[in-house]
Amino acid sequence: ESTNVFHSQKDSLTQKLQDTESRNQALEAHLSELEQRLESTQMEREAFQKSLCSLLQLLDTKIFELTELRDSLAKLIETS
Amino acid sequence: ESTNVFHSQKDSLTQKLQDTESRNQALEAHLSELEQRLESTQMEREAFQKSLCSLLQLLDTKIFELTELRDSLAKLIETS
Amino acid sequence: ESTNVFHSQKDSLTQKLQDTESRNQALEAHLSELEQRLESTQMEREAFQKSLCSLLQLLDTKIFELTELRDSLAKLIETS
Amino acid sequence: ESTNVFHSQKDSLTQKLQDTESRNQALEAHLSELEQRLESTQMEREAFQKSLCSLLQLLDTKIFELTELRDSLAKLIETS
Repeated sequence: ESTNVFHSQKDSLTQKLQDTESRNQALEAHLSELEQRLESTQMEREAFQKSLCSLLQLLDTKIFELTELRDSLAKLIETS
Repeated sequence: ESTNVFHSQKDSLTQKLQDTESRNQALEAHLSELEQRLESTQMEREAFQKSLCSLLQLLDTKIFELTELRDSLAKLIETS
Repeated sequence: ESTNVFHSQKDSLTQKLQDTESRNQALEAHLSELEQRLESTQMEREAFQKSLCSLLQLLDTKIFELTELRDSLAKLIETS
Repeated sequence: ESTNVFHSQKDSLTQKLQDTESRNQALEAHLSELEQRLESTQMEREAFQKSLCSLLQLLDTKIFELTELRDSLAKLIETS
C-alpha cells in the first residue's frame, strides 16, 4: 500500500520535472532568437548611422560649395 | 530499508525540480527584459525615422526655394 | 568790280558758317542722345545690381537654413 | 569807307566761322569719347552676363546634387 503511494509520488515528480525541463528548452530557444534579433538590429542601426554620416558629409560639401558660389556672386556685384 | 531508498529518490527529484523551476524564472525574467529592450529599440527607431522624415521635407522645401532663386537669377540675366 | 568780289566772299563765308552751325546742331543732338543713353544704361545697371543684391541676400538665407538643417541632422545622428 | 565796312563784316564772319569750327571739333571729341564709353560699358555688361551665366550653371549643378542627396536620404529612410 505505502509502496504504491511512493510510486505514484515519484511518477508525478518525474513528470513535472520533464515538463519544466522542456519549458526550459523552449525559453532558451526563444532567448537565443531574441538575442540574435537585437544583435542584427544593432548592426543595422550602425550601418544606417554610417550611411547618414556619409550624407551629412556630402551635405557639408554642398553647403561649402554654395557658400563659394555666394562669394563669387558677391565679388561680381562689387566689381560691376 | 526500502522506505529510505524511496525517500532519498523523492528528495533528489524534488531538489532537481526546484532548481529547474528557479532556472525557468531566471530565463523568463531575462526574456521579459529583452522583449522590453526590443520594443523600446523599435519605438526609438520609429521616432528617429519620423525626425528624418521631417528633415527630408525641410530639405525638399530648401531645394524648392533654391530653384525659385535660380529662376529669378535666370530671368534677371535674360532681361539685362 | 571790287564790290562784287567782296559780295562773293561774304556769301561764301555766310554759307560756310551756316553749314558749320547746322553741323553743330546735329552734333549736339547726337551728344544729347548719347548722354541720355549712358544715363539710362547707368540706371538699368543700378537696378540690376539692386536685384542681384536681393538675390544674394536670399542665397545667404538659404545657405543659413541648410546649415541649420545640417546641424539638426548631425544632432539626430549623435543621439541615435 | 564802304571798303572798311566790307572788311569789318568779312573779319566778323571769319571769326564766327573759326569759333563755330572749333566748337565743332570739341563736340566731335566729346562724341567720340562718349561712344567709346558706351562701347566699353556694353563690353563690360556682356562680360558680366557671361560670368552670371557661369554662376547660374554652377547653381543648377548644386541644386541637382542636393536633389540627389535628398533622394539618397529618402531611400535610406524607406529601407530602414
